[in-house]
Amino acid sequence: MLYFDIKEYKSRIEKTKKRMAAEGIDVLFISQPANMNYLIGYDGWSFYVHQGIIVSADQEEPIWVGRAMDANGARLTTFLKDENIFSYSDDYVQSKIKHPMQVVAGIIREKGWENKTIAVEMDQFYFTHRCFIELEKALPDAKFKDGNILVNKVRLIKSDKEIEFMKKAGKIAEKVMEAGINAVNVGIRECDAAAEISYAQIKGTEEFGGDYPAIVPLMMAGEGTSTPHLTWSDRKFQNNEAILLELSGVYKHYHAPIARTIYLGEPPKLMRDTVDVVIDGLNKTLEFIKPGITCEEVEAKWREAISHSTVVKESRLGYSIGLNYPPDWGEQTVSLRPGDKTVLQPNMAFHIIPGIWYKEVGFEVDASVRITENGYESLYDFPIELFIKK
Amino acid sequence: MLYFDIKEYKSRIEKTKKRMAAEGIDVLFISQPANMNYLIGYDGWSFYVHQGIIVSADQEEPIWVGRAMDANGARLTTFLKDENIFSYSDDYVQSKIKHPMQVVAGIIREKGWENKTIAVEMDQFYFTHRCFIELEKALPDAKFKDGNILVNKVRLIKSDKEIEFMKKAGKIAEKVMEAGINAVNVGIRECDAAAEISYAQIKGTEEFGGDYPAIVPLMMAGEGTSTPHLTWSDRKFQNNEAILLELSGVYKHYHAPIARTIYLGEPPKLMRDTVDVVIDGLNKTLEFIKPGITCEEVEAKWREAISHSTVVKESRLGYSIGLNYPPDWGEQTVSLRPGDKTVLQPNMAFHIIPGIWYKEVGFEVDASVRITENGYESLYDFPIELFIKK
Repeated sequence: MLYFDIKEYKSRIEKTKKRMAAEGIDVLFISQPANMNYLIGYDGWSFYVHQGIIVSADQEEPIWVGRAMDANGARLTTFLKDENIFSYSDDYVQSKIKHPMQVVAGIIREKGWENKTIAVEMDQFYFTHRCFIELEKALPDAKFKDGNILVNKVRLIKSDKEIEFMKKAGKIAEKVMEAGINAVNVGIRECDAAAEISYAQIKGTEEFGGDYPAIVPLMMAGEGTSTPHLTWSDRKFQNNEAILLELSGVYKHYHAPIARTIYLGEPPKLMRDTVDVVIDGLNKTLEFIKPGITCEEVEAKWREAISHSTVVKESRLGYSIGLNYPPDWGEQTVSLRPGDKTVLQPNMAFHIIPGIWYKEVGFEVDASVRITENGYESLYDFPIELFIKK
Repeated sequence: MLYFDIKEYKSRIEKTKKRMAAEGIDVLFISQPANMNYLIGYDGWSFYVHQGIIVSADQEEPIWVGRAMDANGARLTTFLKDENIFSYSDDYVQSKIKHPMQVVAGIIREKGWENKTIAVEMDQFYFTHRCFIELEKALPDAKFKDGNILVNKVRLIKSDKEIEFMKKAGKIAEKVMEAGINAVNVGIRECDAAAEISYAQIKGTEEFGGDYPAIVPLMMAGEGTSTPHLTWSDRKFQNNEAILLELSGVYKHYHAPIARTIYLGEPPKLMRDTVDVVIDGLNKTLEFIKPGITCEEVEAKWREAISHSTVVKESRLGYSIGLNYPPDWGEQTVSLRPGDKTVLQPNMAFHIIPGIWYKEVGFEVDASVRITENGYESLYDFPIELFIKK
């Protein structure tokens, strides 16, 4: 059930070990689900209990540690030898006394790594403060370091096979947004439109199935368009309101996010003016994108393009995307914003979303792109416009 | 957009403050999305960045703190006065220098609570180790305590309105499992069945819409039935295999989980024997359930009921359910397992899932129940059996 050739996983592990060496890290404990999947293929919704993988400079293969009932999942979805699959008994789950990190520490001691420099993902969800306390307590001779987005950085430049996955996600994204735009109509319940969207996300295409998104369909209608992260209710869509849809196509956890706006009725002037400014700004930004420029230059281009207008966007323009699991499809590595001097390189991928969420007007449109040798290409083919339904 | 009467939220806050007082906690910082929703109504998929609410003994209303773009979401979904909605600018998001907890600490200082006893949810996802480091650094005079499942414990006994929500979730659960059983057939892609399931989850009923589940549809087929947390692929279902479905109906984030097993073809003897033992064991356990007995007694009853067989279940039999957000629909408070001496009380609710995930045979069936004055009632009406499709 591996999604990639075993060589690709091994090369990812090698790159991770190189980064570890460069940062003086002997042992890295990884709990972010995307990083686990990226390095060993592990795939399962078991991240609601503590689990992780241990990568050590000393040992070729990483070690998977999780709940006993999930060990067979590790056997089925990874290439690890059985001797590298460790598990903890069920009485460690949400216990007042025991904690899964005690088992992780036990493995580290058993391997003789207890006085090494051990890095953990200090600002990742799925690695709680208690996780750290337990590791520190059980490994008093270890030196702890922050390995927060170490693996995420390895993920920044995609392989050709990963880009192929993202393009498949893009194909699904086209169907997903089409389903959303078709479903949103005056008098239809928000939940019914969301159901159509989710159906399209998971069904995928005739050739390949879809996966679950790291963020459920975001759907803001009416006054809800003043903020970007609401979901549906069973309220009905009304005449003369905007609906923002931020969705994604997903193929084997690789994302191609897509955001568009629908207006039911005749859009008022402020809406039309905002749409014109944002779409023109997005198009000018896209034209500018090519390898060799920095992330902050991309954002500056956008700001320059809208500078003649009253539109102001205070949040970042975009961020790196690829493989991910809930709660976020963003990679956490680089952002299109002032101060980010990361240089664009071929096979980086970005979600560029100049979303506007004012009290008076909300508008979303986006592009999910990969950097090519000379410029960029979109992961999907979908009109960049306001969808007006009367 | 409040789901409950404001009085119910205020009573939840009062109960939280009483527990805080009992544990010597002056200020509680809460980042678990379900706890945020429970206390102030906040609802949005914004938990992929740091956010939380501050409950202080000193102040009637909690304080919401989150990303600037989500502040309007707090205005729309909570009852908080505007003066209690605080936000951080976008350059705090995934920054190398700034951290949202610096803003949280700033608010605590501004309010004069910097030398108080402050509790945080130390083993909750969404509260990372880095969150703690930043708070500790910025509040050197504070005394920190663990408030890990303090609010979860308040959630343990549901109000009648919450039970009503869970019964609505149960109505949806019936439709969801029906959709799943109908969709699973030889030659059908797993993703197509998962799409039908998700569609039913979100659409809900004609009277009320569904919500997103805290765990996506779990679907294990063939050799995958040796483990409980896999999801779908675009593989086709085959003849002579079992398919485990663990799903949920969801109404406004309240869950009614439902798990059933389908067999395509003629089930082998080991499967039939296991099914008989587990169903008999589940039924005997259910008959036993009433207020006044302990969680471990419920589990012991199950173990006794299957003791004549070769079936062994090492994992917990069940756990408290109610309101939740990804990644888990379990409440983390009490479990049906040895050592848990929590006494059952009316309006507690449990997911009882005697799942079997052996290499040779996998079988899932369950019950989602609420404790009544005299016994229990199921949240849904669905046959407890193996569904055989030939």
